[in-house]
Amino acid sequence: MRPQGIAILGSTGSIGCNTLSVVESFPEELFRVVALAAGGNVARLAAQVERHRPELVSVESEVRAEELLAELGRRGVRAPRVETGDAGLVAVSTHEGADCVVSAIVGAVGFVPTLRALEAGKRVALANKETLVMAGELMTKAAALSGAELLPVDSEHNALHQCLRGERREEVRRLILTASGGPFRTKPLSAMENATVAEAMRHPTWSMGAKITIDCATLMNKGLEVIEARWLFGYGPDEIDVVVHPESVVHSLVELVDGSVIAQLGVTDMRHAIQYALTYPERHPSGALARLDLMKLGTLNFEPPDPERFPCLSLAYRALRAGGTLPAALNAANEEAVAAFLGGRIRLTDIPLVIEKVMDAHATREVKDLDVVLEVDRASRAQASAEIARLTEVHGAMR
Amino acid sequence: MRPQGIAILGSTGSIGCNTLSVVESFPEELFRVVALAAGGNVARLAAQVERHRPELVSVESEVRAEELLAELGRRGVRAPRVETGDAGLVAVSTHEGADCVVSAIVGAVGFVPTLRALEAGKRVALANKETLVMAGELMTKAAALSGAELLPVDSEHNALHQCLRGERREEVRRLILTASGGPFRTKPLSAMENATVAEAMRHPTWSMGAKITIDCATLMNKGLEVIEARWLFGYGPDEIDVVVHPESVVHSLVELVDGSVIAQLGVTDMRHAIQYALTYPERHPSGALARLDLMKLGTLNFEPPDPERFPCLSLAYRALRAGGTLPAALNAANEEAVAAFLGGRIRLTDIPLVIEKVMDAHATREVKDLDVVLEVDRASRAQASAEIARLTEVHGAMR
Repeated sequence: MRPQGIAILGSTGSIGCNTLSVVESFPEELFRVVALAAGGNVARLAAQVERHRPELVSVESEVRAEELLAELGRRGVRAPRVETGDAGLVAVSTHEGADCVVSAIVGAVGFVPTLRALEAGKRVALANKETLVMAGELMTKAAALSGAELLPVDSEHNALHQCLRGERREEVRRLILTASGGPFRTKPLSAMENATVAEAMRHPTWSMGAKITIDCATLMNKGLEVIEARWLFGYGPDEIDVVVHPESVVHSLVELVDGSVIAQLGVTDMRHAIQYALTYPERHPSGALARLDLMKLGTLNFEPPDPERFPCLSLAYRALRAGGTLPAALNAANEEAVAAFLGGRIRLTDIPLVIEKVMDAHATREVKDLDVVLEVDRASRAQASAEIARLTEVHGAMR
Repeated sequence: MRPQGIAILGSTGSIGCNTLSVVESFPEELFRVVALAAGGNVARLAAQVERHRPELVSVESEVRAEELLAELGRRGVRAPRVETGDAGLVAVSTHEGADCVVSAIVGAVGFVPTLRALEAGKRVALANKETLVMAGELMTKAAALSGAELLPVDSEHNALHQCLRGERREEVRRLILTASGGPFRTKPLSAMENATVAEAMRHPTWSMGAKITIDCATLMNKGLEVIEARWLFGYGPDEIDVVVHPESVVHSLVELVDGSVIAQLGVTDMRHAIQYALTYPERHPSGALARLDLMKLGTLNFEPPDPERFPCLSLAYRALRAGGTLPAALNAANEEAVAAFLGGRIRLTDIPLVIEKVMDAHATREVKDLDVVLEVDRASRAQASAEIARLTEVHGAMR
């Protein structure tokens, strides 16, 4: 049997690097990296190319492509085919040698290449949750049409996928996503208002990229995951709950109609979920990875999420209930607001204000095709930017 | 479709009554009680007969049979066929109308009728763990030969059964049984030495019969469950672990080779496990039963079992490792010792001493057939009785 071909969208990010680490932990007969797409981290990408010798790579621009070729030259590595921009991403995600596409570009940029991979019938290991938030219906329809498998790499959805392995859809009462509660779970509300970027980046249990870490601090990450779960598993908003679990040991749970609850637990290392998605439906020994030691952990805590502290969670439920294009508007506004917070332009607590403003102004439409989603994404970003500019001015005047 | 025929061995005990309560919670088209076996609780049995109108009942003796008939007469209830003793138990467990036999007689008495049910190809919902401890190999072979299903009603094994639903045997690394730790988990060791029957009966989370409650206080219950798990699921002693979990919310866990851990959680109500076994492979809504509320529970704790406090657990592992007839000897000695403690003749901490004495003296043999097991059971009880008499005398002399 030939090795499974792997393509990675976002190879130099957190999930991308962890995916390569999982691939490296297996014999070469199992996996072969055929295509990599990265943004601008040319040095890291060059090292990945040297190690894995993919047939195709993609970077964000011609300038980066030149830099990559120069870097490969310095290393004495034969250059693969190099593509750029949106077309490059699609070339990677539909590469003929790819059996499984790891979709790990943060935000809306990963949307089109992921859809193309599903349309091409490729297994997609999905870490880019925005894709399902923006257009879950399009994505799942494309997967159903081509017969492509959609496997979640998010630890929570990966956990749900595992809990649901032996169960029938109609015998499930609800999905329960766990949330760490982020760094502000027990702090006074004022600490959230005055939070610096460094404080908001202090995630209690997971080490991840900047955007998702901020989403964890606002609980928007969990909100996006509720929407993601709706599309991955086909349950409605009233069948998906969130429980705060600061230790992040229980990755998620499923309650069955007979009252039984099945949970998946593990150490907080994304490589477990990535390996699960790559090797599914088989499970392979994860030799080098740490094992869960319940006795050492001692105590696991659970509490309800505080709606006052985390308005983003309610906004996400509102978007899911309304359906149509509203989740895409929420996602676009959130991405802009998080970027503005990371850029020091607005406060952490401004993020839900920006999103709510955009949602209130949004005229929800049906998601008929890709163009509708992309149009809503663009328009919502513009609206969010305007609101961010207004807030920045207000804060400036207040200083 | 005709209703599923249910026979119950031990209908007036804790599991028996809960089984009837589950049956009563479903429409009559689903289940029909065809045969009941009880010991001497004639009043309760008569009420069960009045309610469920089984075709056959069995009681321990002719005297009890007369009492039952008289009681039914007083109630104006037409008497079913009444059998007695060991033959009566087998008549119930092999009743032609029974599709599923709930085996819930505590101790070695349930052994033969359960084996006969499996030989007859009936699904057995097993709450009598001693059956598998004494002769797991005979039982599982009989089930394999006839194609009978063996479904555990113990909450822990029921949990393992649920965790294993979607998994392959070779992809499981280990089973992890949870133990409440009983009433002496945090007490000084001296409290265990001087424990009264009332103190030992104070189980922190489950309300059960006397014998199993004492087994929980010594952790022998968990030891028996480790042996039971070996036969139910086919894993060796090094693949079965025990973790103390005082809240008894996580009923057990399974660790997979890839490091993922699947757990089953639920409220501490045996009716859940009973319903699971009766309705398997389907899950039916459990309308009246309480649901698990993780947020209300708040905290779950885990710790390793203390080998000094709970020598019974090590004795059980020793018996499992040696195999053959040693587990049957351990079980017989334990039953005698627990009865002696309940009768006020020995101390709680004498129980492991009695068992160890019997095990040390036991010449382990292969379990070739039923006779070997029954012979070992008889001989070990006699030895245990002698040791109990000796200890009683020592304690008497010390007073």
